[in-house]
Amino acid sequence: MDTTIPGDEPTPSVQIDADRLEANITAMASATRARGVALRPHAKTHKIAEIAALQLAAGAVGLTVATVGEAEVFAGAGVEDLFIAYPLWVDQAKGDRLRRLASAARITVGVDSAESATALARSLGSAVGAVAVRVEVDSGHHRSGVAPGDAATVAVAAADAGLEVTGAFTFPGHSYAPGMPLTAARDEDAALGVAAAGLRAEGFAAAELSGGSTPSALMGGGTATELRPGVYVFGDAQQWELGTTGPGDIALTVAATVVSHHRRTPGEPGHLLLDAGSKVLGSDRAAWATGYGRLLEHPEARIVALSEHHATVQWPAGEPLPARGTRLRVVPNHVCLPVNLVDEVQVVRDGAVIDRWVVAARGRNS
Amino acid sequence: MDTTIPGDEPTPSVQIDADRLEANITAMASATRARGVALRPHAKTHKIAEIAALQLAAGAVGLTVATVGEAEVFAGAGVEDLFIAYPLWVDQAKGDRLRRLASAARITVGVDSAESATALARSLGSAVGAVAVRVEVDSGHHRSGVAPGDAATVAVAAADAGLEVTGAFTFPGHSYAPGMPLTAARDEDAALGVAAAGLRAEGFAAAELSGGSTPSALMGGGTATELRPGVYVFGDAQQWELGTTGPGDIALTVAATVVSHHRRTPGEPGHLLLDAGSKVLGSDRAAWATGYGRLLEHPEARIVALSEHHATVQWPAGEPLPARGTRLRVVPNHVCLPVNLVDEVQVVRDGAVIDRWVVAARGRNS
Repeated sequence: MDTTIPGDEPTPSVQIDADRLEANITAMASATRARGVALRPHAKTHKIAEIAALQLAAGAVGLTVATVGEAEVFAGAGVEDLFIAYPLWVDQAKGDRLRRLASAARITVGVDSAESATALARSLGSAVGAVAVRVEVDSGHHRSGVAPGDAATVAVAAADAGLEVTGAFTFPGHSYAPGMPLTAARDEDAALGVAAAGLRAEGFAAAELSGGSTPSALMGGGTATELRPGVYVFGDAQQWELGTTGPGDIALTVAATVVSHHRRTPGEPGHLLLDAGSKVLGSDRAAWATGYGRLLEHPEARIVALSEHHATVQWPAGEPLPARGTRLRVVPNHVCLPVNLVDEVQVVRDGAVIDRWVVAARGRNS
Repeated sequence: MDTTIPGDEPTPSVQIDADRLEANITAMASATRARGVALRPHAKTHKIAEIAALQLAAGAVGLTVATVGEAEVFAGAGVEDLFIAYPLWVDQAKGDRLRRLASAARITVGVDSAESATALARSLGSAVGAVAVRVEVDSGHHRSGVAPGDAATVAVAAADAGLEVTGAFTFPGHSYAPGMPLTAARDEDAALGVAAAGLRAEGFAAAELSGGSTPSALMGGGTATELRPGVYVFGDAQQWELGTTGPGDIALTVAATVVSHHRRTPGEPGHLLLDAGSKVLGSDRAAWATGYGRLLEHPEARIVALSEHHATVQWPAGEPLPARGTRLRVVPNHVCLPVNLVDEVQVVRDGAVIDRWVVAARGRNS
């Protein structure tokens, strides 16, 4: 196992393994192509124009984004088809931005109420035809979206307001738990099926049925016409623990240095302190996660405590503690957070830093 | 109660109430002055040069920072006395940066092992005398630091390596739990007392004994000569729940818009969805916290789920759900995270945005 960490600059730093990244992009593109379903990767995971270009070159039909600001960044980088997959509340300022965006790219926005569809249409004014909408339905994650049987009601309101309704979408986020990906995929199939039937009954063509999350993306029964996984490009400790990926496929790690050995009480297993904390790893920890992150080359080690600048690692019993000054590769729990905490990432191939990519959409929360 | 949220730009946005900020800065400065103890606020909480200037103008002896990068930013802004209050591992590159820093400001660094002191001295080379060190002791937080009785051993190693040892410090981070601030303050007193005695026995003057966290800062028995609270400038939902601050003193909020009303199951209390998630609030949630954050003007509301761009708020039974499009003020759980997620903050006084401050040290993790 190559445990050399390229680069000699200060830790913590976010490193992308180019070979693994490309392999992950190719694998998802091939799998969705084989199923005859369109791939629209969620770019909130990486926020990087160079990675978007790789996804599109591999056959993605466009990108999914989280905010108007992310859409602006990727449209500026030449992406021609963008879906903002959340129920936005569009006031006049946001409407103006969407109008400008729609002159550069095909823009689709999520709606999950008659009120939000009406506000969107009102803010677009005479450009109401320039932005398409999909109705969000709740397939079991219970964050946003209407009940699948109510999709048609929202679609009618949107159409009455002058918007083009192109379909429905859902985020089966309850797939992020052990044993749940298949259940969530089936829930997604069912929800999109109900939504589609409702839309058809109201006379909508409703061709686009969009679903998908990294854990559930390849488990669906064929109802979705499009999938929107995001995390698959990098993998993370959550996916490792869910079994969606293995450590050999994880493409993003945070290089960190051992700065302290801490013996909390005599007889306790060994602990070490790394100089990577929540301000570079993020502090997401699902109830089922075994820690705040893992180490790529030490699968039995666990981050058992996390503060802003430090990770406390419980070291496997029987393994000697690495010396202070040793660099280790941390696998974050949820990889969508670290990219949003740095201005650039290092791109690594064959043990060397070969490029640096700017995180162009970092901090674009609105 | 003024529930108008100033500004008309896109949400989420981070807003600082200037009056409350100044009152918090004055109150801590007065309280520490009255106790005859020096105040060295932790600047990782705000990362903003303008706030540092207010703290110094109110009498702070200097600033505490988390990283060499933060020290560089604040030295560049004219701060003349900086303490990097963590056990750094200093390689040649970091040693070069510390040498340059020491030509602009008085720099003190934490050490918690003979190895880290030796590495620091080696990297400083002929400039070994330009950087002072304090020995970190563990007063009960169990993150870093040696046992208080071992402080002298580390100090002797540092002095043998040529470093000036000016004292000891501790972070009583176990103060961040209900009922624990007073216990942590007493533990801090005890740990600093033991460390000081050990240093004196080895012939060190050991004048500087630094402690303090926002919950425990004003509960100590007088052993510390210096305190390093950070969060007190803003307050947050954690401090609100610990009783360290009340909602009327909270100076930083995240303005967010209601984007969806979500009825998860019939009969369940009302929920709404805000457009502020972990990418602006941070996702810290202590085991004892009642949620992922609170709402300033609605103390009974709770953020019960948090994703990257959305907060799910359980609304108090009996209160009507605010309409979609309503702006609300979110109080983050842990205020050190939001400032690190935005490039600038809006400064609000008398209901108007009067200034914008750049988060100059955002992302300076190394």
